[in-house]
Amino acid sequence: MFFHKQELQYTAKPKQPDAVYARRMQEILGGQYGEITVAMQYSFQAWNAHLPGKYRDLLFGIAAEEFSHVEMIATMIAQLLEKLPVEQSEAAIQADPTVGAILGGTDVQSAIVAGAGVRPVDSNGNPWQASYITASGNLLADFTANANAEMQGRVQVARIYEMTDDPGVRDMLSFLIARDTVHQQQWTAAAAELQAEGVEQLPVPSNFPRSRENRDVEYQFINFSDGAEAKDGAWAKGPTPDGEGEFSYEEAPFPTSPAVFPPPTQPDPRFFGTSEKPNLVEKAAGAVKDAVSRK
Amino acid sequence: MFFHKQELQYTAKPKQPDAVYARRMQEILGGQYGEITVAMQYSFQAWNAHLPGKYRDLLFGIAAEEFSHVEMIATMIAQLLEKLPVEQSEAAIQADPTVGAILGGTDVQSAIVAGAGVRPVDSNGNPWQASYITASGNLLADFTANANAEMQGRVQVARIYEMTDDPGVRDMLSFLIARDTVHQQQWTAAAAELQAEGVEQLPVPSNFPRSRENRDVEYQFINFSDGAEAKDGAWAKGPTPDGEGEFSYEEAPFPTSPAVFPPPTQPDPRFFGTSEKPNLVEKAAGAVKDAVSRK
Amino acid sequence: MFFHKQELQYTAKPKQPDAVYARRMQEILGGQYGEITVAMQYSFQAWNAHLPGKYRDLLFGIAAEEFSHVEMIATMIAQLLEKLPVEQSEAAIQADPTVGAILGGTDVQSAIVAGAGVRPVDSNGNPWQASYITASGNLLADFTANANAEMQGRVQVARIYEMTDDPGVRDMLSFLIARDTVHQQQWTAAAAELQAEGVEQLPVPSNFPRSRENRDVEYQFINFSDGAEAKDGAWAKGPTPDGEGEFSYEEAPFPTSPAVFPPPTQPDPRFFGTSEKPNLVEKAAGAVKDAVSRK
Amino acid sequence: MFFHKQELQYTAKPKQPDAVYARRMQEILGGQYGEITVAMQYSFQAWNAHLPGKYRDLLFGIAAEEFSHVEMIATMIAQLLEKLPVEQSEAAIQADPTVGAILGGTDVQSAIVAGAGVRPVDSNGNPWQASYITASGNLLADFTANANAEMQGRVQVARIYEMTDDPGVRDMLSFLIARDTVHQQQWTAAAAELQAEGVEQLPVPSNFPRSRENRDVEYQFINFSDGAEAKDGAWAKGPTPDGEGEFSYEEAPFPTSPAVFPPPTQPDPRFFGTSEKPNLVEKAAGAVKDAVSRK
Amino acid sequence: MFFHKQELQYTAKPKQPDAVYARRMQEILGGQYGEITVAMQYSFQAWNAHLPGKYRDLLFGIAAEEFSHVEMIATMIAQLLEKLPVEQSEAAIQADPTVGAILGGTDVQSAIVAGAGVRPVDSNGNPWQASYITASGNLLADFTANANAEMQGRVQVARIYEMTDDPGVRDMLSFLIARDTVHQQQWTAAAAELQAEGVEQLPVPSNFPRSRENRDVEYQFINFSDGAEAKDGAWAKGPTPDGEGEFSYEEAPFPTSPAVFPPPTQPDPRFFGTSEKPNLVEKAAGAVKDAVSRK
Amino acid sequence: MFFHKQELQYTAKPKQPDAVYARRMQEILGGQYGEITVAMQYSFQAWNAHLPGKYRDLLFGIAAEEFSHVEMIATMIAQLLEKLPVEQSEAAIQADPTVGAILGGTDVQSAIVAGAGVRPVDSNGNPWQASYITASGNLLADFTANANAEMQGRVQVARIYEMTDDPGVRDMLSFLIARDTVHQQQWTAAAAELQAEGVEQLPVPSNFPRSRENRDVEYQFINFSDGAEAKDGAWAKGPTPDGEGEFSYEEAPFPTSPAVFPPPTQPDPRFFGTSEKPNLVEKAAGAVKDAVSRK
Repeated sequence: MFFHKQELQYTAKPKQPDAVYARRMQEILGGQYGEITVAMQYSFQAWNAHLPGKYRDLLFGIAAEEFSHVEMIATMIAQLLEKLPVEQSEAAIQADPTVGAILGGTDVQSAIVAGAGVRPVDSNGNPWQASYITASGNLLADFTANANAEMQGRVQVARIYEMTDDPGVRDMLSFLIARDTVHQQQWTAAAAELQAEGVEQLPVPSNFPRSRENRDVEYQFINFSDGAEAKDGAWAKGPTPDGEGEFSYEEAPFPTSPAVFPPPTQPDPRFFGTSEKPNLVEKAAGAVKDAVSRK
Repeated sequence: MFFHKQELQYTAKPKQPDAVYARRMQEILGGQYGEITVAMQYSFQAWNAHLPGKYRDLLFGIAAEEFSHVEMIATMIAQLLEKLPVEQSEAAIQADPTVGAILGGTDVQSAIVAGAGVRPVDSNGNPWQASYITASGNLLADFTANANAEMQGRVQVARIYEMTDDPGVRDMLSFLIARDTVHQQQWTAAAAELQAEGVEQLPVPSNFPRSRENRDVEYQFINFSDGAEAKDGAWAKGPTPDGEGEFSYEEAPFPTSPAVFPPPTQPDPRFFGTSEKPNLVEKAAGAVKDAVSRK
Repeated sequence: MFFHKQELQYTAKPKQPDAVYARRMQEILGGQYGEITVAMQYSFQAWNAHLPGKYRDLLFGIAAEEFSHVEMIATMIAQLLEKLPVEQSEAAIQADPTVGAILGGTDVQSAIVAGAGVRPVDSNGNPWQASYITASGNLLADFTANANAEMQGRVQVARIYEMTDDPGVRDMLSFLIARDTVHQQQWTAAAAELQAEGVEQLPVPSNFPRSRENRDVEYQFINFSDGAEAKDGAWAKGPTPDGEGEFSYEEAPFPTSPAVFPPPTQPDPRFFGTSEKPNLVEKAAGAVKDAVSRK
Repeated sequence: MFFHKQELQYTAKPKQPDAVYARRMQEILGGQYGEITVAMQYSFQAWNAHLPGKYRDLLFGIAAEEFSHVEMIATMIAQLLEKLPVEQSEAAIQADPTVGAILGGTDVQSAIVAGAGVRPVDSNGNPWQASYITASGNLLADFTANANAEMQGRVQVARIYEMTDDPGVRDMLSFLIARDTVHQQQWTAAAAELQAEGVEQLPVPSNFPRSRENRDVEYQFINFSDGAEAKDGAWAKGPTPDGEGEFSYEEAPFPTSPAVFPPPTQPDPRFFGTSEKPNLVEKAAGAVKDAVSRK
Repeated sequence: MFFHKQELQYTAKPKQPDAVYARRMQEILGGQYGEITVAMQYSFQAWNAHLPGKYRDLLFGIAAEEFSHVEMIATMIAQLLEKLPVEQSEAAIQADPTVGAILGGTDVQSAIVAGAGVRPVDSNGNPWQASYITASGNLLADFTANANAEMQGRVQVARIYEMTDDPGVRDMLSFLIARDTVHQQQWTAAAAELQAEGVEQLPVPSNFPRSRENRDVEYQFINFSDGAEAKDGAWAKGPTPDGEGEFSYEEAPFPTSPAVFPPPTQPDPRFFGTSEKPNLVEKAAGAVKDAVSRK
Repeated sequence: MFFHKQELQYTAKPKQPDAVYARRMQEILGGQYGEITVAMQYSFQAWNAHLPGKYRDLLFGIAAEEFSHVEMIATMIAQLLEKLPVEQSEAAIQADPTVGAILGGTDVQSAIVAGAGVRPVDSNGNPWQASYITASGNLLADFTANANAEMQGRVQVARIYEMTDDPGVRDMLSFLIARDTVHQQQWTAAAAELQAEGVEQLPVPSNFPRSRENRDVEYQFINFSDGAEAKDGAWAKGPTPDGEGEFSYEEAPFPTSPAVFPPPTQPDPRFFGTSEKPNLVEKAAGAVKDAVSRK
């Protein structure tokens, strides 16, 4: 069950409205790596968890915090939009080019659709979509997804931190960045703990029998490009992270003999694809069938 | 530049057609974590790389392999669809319930749109979309995204491996699983190398000054749920992965004083939102303005 | 701020797993009128409210309940999927046509993507998207949107109630239907109260001056079809809901003189549209310009 | 059957081109609540109507008018775009900042994709999509959806009316606003008539037996937030709109005993989720099976 | 202006309901090449036409017919769905595997969302979207798009014709196929007429000066694959359709000297990409700036 | 198999960065008719080809070139973005309106999401989606789709050529335009060759028996609009392109007798649509059933 309180987790108050910046902030609300994404991602992972206990509690514990971040950012954006200008035409721009330049930086649907309100979209106005989230049921894979989400999130918040000097905005962002800092480390720590406890290990999923994979190629770096330096990294030589092998380097791709391209398929002619068989045969057959059926 | 050869990287030949299974295999071609995703993701990361040398060469080297996997899977699916039935109606199902059950398992657009052909969609028929990919310019964040993508990919391929007994299909999947094994370890190794070389470190992005974040909350686990066991994990106590701090545990969320909800915004009344001000005032003003403008 | 408790608002326990039905239930979770939609819709309306007090409190008060419904349904679906079969091929179907028929009724991504888990999608596997929600800043319009959402929601839950006999599922749905009952009446009551208090009235938005609209056609039913009975309804005669007019009936559409179709536009020829002007002129001009620029 | 005449329902002629404003007008053409939405929504409701006669005739009668509005707006936008500038680079902007500001306000695909033409998109360039429409087969729910659509539509047209002073544009908008006025009242009147005639009543759907819903909670306002004033509205006390009950107020949410969170699910281990069971068991089993199958 | 009559262009009456087939028919209504696409495509091309007269009249003349086809198909699908079963659970399927097989073939949202009604979606339930249409302002390009749309449409209708034996359905489809026949030929004829009249010619757009293109490569077939037979076609030798050149054949791709890959970009470090410059420099600079700003 | 070389097919080097223009160029990378579309379209057509030999080799031969164009454009865009400004607020715009105007012309996600990097989106920031592509298995239909794609592509590249004076950009575009020139002619030639060889002919698909279509209307132009000049074109008189008929002209649409609108459908009442049957009957029945089941 979710409950709501009309306090915020942290102060969300800009020094002054800024509709241009409001649009930038939409990214960390409704973008691919915005707060809606992490709130929903951790919730679905919790609902799909097959392990009771600390890992699921961790997921629930952070998920609801992320919903609280959604609210902080939404509240901030609504305030940033408070002085959004109404007139939006070439005449208005010619009357004041600075206003015109500002208009060019705002999200036009903030005005027309939301009446100077926050919207569940990214900074380009793309509506948030659930295909952004990941919840596979495999915790090591999903915690890695979560670590990535917090990293991408912190990169984006850091970028928009630099886009403004508003002290109220920066104060709230400094809070969010700190929470991204701890969350990216927590998912990293949780992923490490899963491995340390032997619950799940590299390669994920760890309980798929290795004997079923093609072991000839499970440690090869195969260079499908001509970059000469790819061979110099830790991915092309030395021990593998699963502690079981050694990376090797193949300078160029090679087809596995006899990897010939199979012959084209020949589906039922009634799919009307272009095929080798003379069309006349089908045409004749169809016509005959038609003639017969008409009698 | 990309070149193409009409050999495959590995044999892609089913023992026999299976249109039901063809639909399952679409997931690893055109799904969120299918081969199109990784091929495009690594390519865009390479084109956006700001470092020349081994990391970019790594990206190019694997990207083109993933395009080659796209082709192997596409070729396999086309063959699995070769005997897709044409008749698809209640009458056909009543004539043969087994055929009916098979029809229920296929992707109906394989028949109508592609004429028994492979399509750039997932196993539910959702078209592949570029919002699946990640390319931020920050290599540690992106390599973590890549490790996640290979983990999710291997989980999914392992699942569909279990869905069939066809030896030809399983043979190809055993190859792809092995490549997912090596790739998830390579991105993990590459992420470690970035950190070992001091190019990029936790928390990502590492060159955002820590002094700008709210350091009071950068190591706290705050439990927004009531799960009692969240406090027992490596994310709530002990050293943090960045080597600079110690996790702490907060049993419940707390608003930061004075985190009051700000008062509602009052945008320009011409946005026609419902506001505190009596509507009559605006109505009167508008009517007067109208009356004046008509003279 | 949002908080989470690991109790549910109401028992969510099926008598037994049913993966076919799980797919149906996805509609009321992640569909156009599912619980994610109403939870997000009411939240964004609250964040965009320009009136403090009871209307905004109403929005917050129901929003968090809807998030709690999201959780109940997600929890139910995860349990319904617990016995989802793994094998999914033509061979498996031929071995047991009943299993085949069941497979045809499930969401294939539940298996491959979520490992027998719940997903943020509708019953056809379309990911939830934020373009489903409405939050305009105008409360009478938005409460009408909310009344509609609860009506559509109750229609859909009533339909899926009839699709199963599972007593555990029906028990939870009887709770959700009752909440849809009260919510659709509450939004209706709230819309009436807005009007009774004179805060907002028909036509919405009420503070747009009526003098600015074309009053000649503001009460006409114009029949653009040839249905003879459209003239018999309360929309074609009698008083209008705003209490200010009388509906009239126009038997057929009529252009307003002189509503001629304007002449085709002639944009800059460098947009390369097909235009009346001879192409040769532009070709010559371009060639000359090219020749000059090459010197 | 649909027919077309090359007259417009009403004059659509701007005083002068205005590419900035053209983008704003796209919202009421191809947005969530634009004219394409209502034209399609009423058409699909008519095609799905189960009642012959006046209600279906009403739907057909307005649907075709909305297609005529689509045409008026499309025609207007094409004219507004007639002088769209071609050059669009930093150099062009530096040469004339006013032109630059104007460019920032236009839809860039109007230029590149349509060559200064109208497009089936909203003001942010999102393509119109059919998931905007509602056609459930239940007329009271759908007429409420229609009333909402006309309200949202009128709010948006009123907003863009204020964005320009062009008398030609305003003249057309004054016509559209008047039609939105009458349509929102007609759907309201039609919804009332459905109820007055006893065809359909609150709660929708009215022929779902009330005895099947959980009657304990069908009239309760449960406050999931801490807003003190939610108890003061017509939704928390007094008679309910269906005339059968009385609203009550619950100050805080409460789980229904024993609403414990169910234990985590344990799907087939071949879905490779992270589960309680030791992985070693499956690993061993898989390896044995593999060893056997290889013999 | 559009008008509607409650007659259909052609009889749309199935011999009997068939919910499985109804789903197939959705493709030609709401799919990429369904009737909604062509109706909207031709309408937008007409509204964007820069030439008055016969070409624009042609567009209007066919567009409204396509809307009439939308209606015929929608009406047919609604009837095919009339006996859609309600119960949809594993228990229902086990009670009758044939019913189960039928359920697997239907669109589950037809039941839950539309109550056994037609929907604006394709055969996989993807909502129609406006990004399917093409209207560039260039008539030769657009008529080619139209010819393609009618070809794809006829291929799809032919496929679904074969999927059923219902004489009522086949009768309507035989009408639609004939109209696709004539329309694909009409767009072909119209494209030829544009060229014959010199209004527009190959290559499109014909008034872009050829002198501006890189004439060295404008007639070369460059074989980026290793297929030996690509050289044997009319695209690799002989005269070109524009009557101005001769195709040539290049056996393999070649970079144009000096097509070196440019060095990686170095954006502003505040974008926090991973770059060559030591991070310490930025870190130090940021910290200094922070220290200064705090004084 | 695909291989990659770190050379480009052609020089991709702007004279100087231009973030405004970078956004325009995104259209020809990730738009409906951008290079990703054609690369994927030709690849899927090849994988679905049922004919071995020259036509399939043609598809493979051009597909990989298009991937090489994707890379050239991506490389160019990344360079154009190199000097993208970081500060993006009203304050920054007021400090320098020219910078403000430039910001209004850029894609804001280039900054926040990609850190001044190229993205797989169109010029409005819509992610590329696989529903743009066409691969039906019918070669004449698909080659027509390809000719259209190259025409639309050349129109768009020609437009953006005119948007800049940067000699480096124009040099690369002159190369791409030349390749569009040859490709649109090659698909035209290939379509002609298919017909000349009798493999596939008009109307597509040619092996659907003409006897099955309604031959009464297969050559009629039916004018559903009132444009007087539609009768003057080659589509309304004279021989048809298939060489088998003669177009005729019908001045107005006509319903085919007896094309009456069928009566409304009456689905199972448990779908809760609004129907003719008195609701009381169902209500009573449900209540009785409930009462019985409770005993």
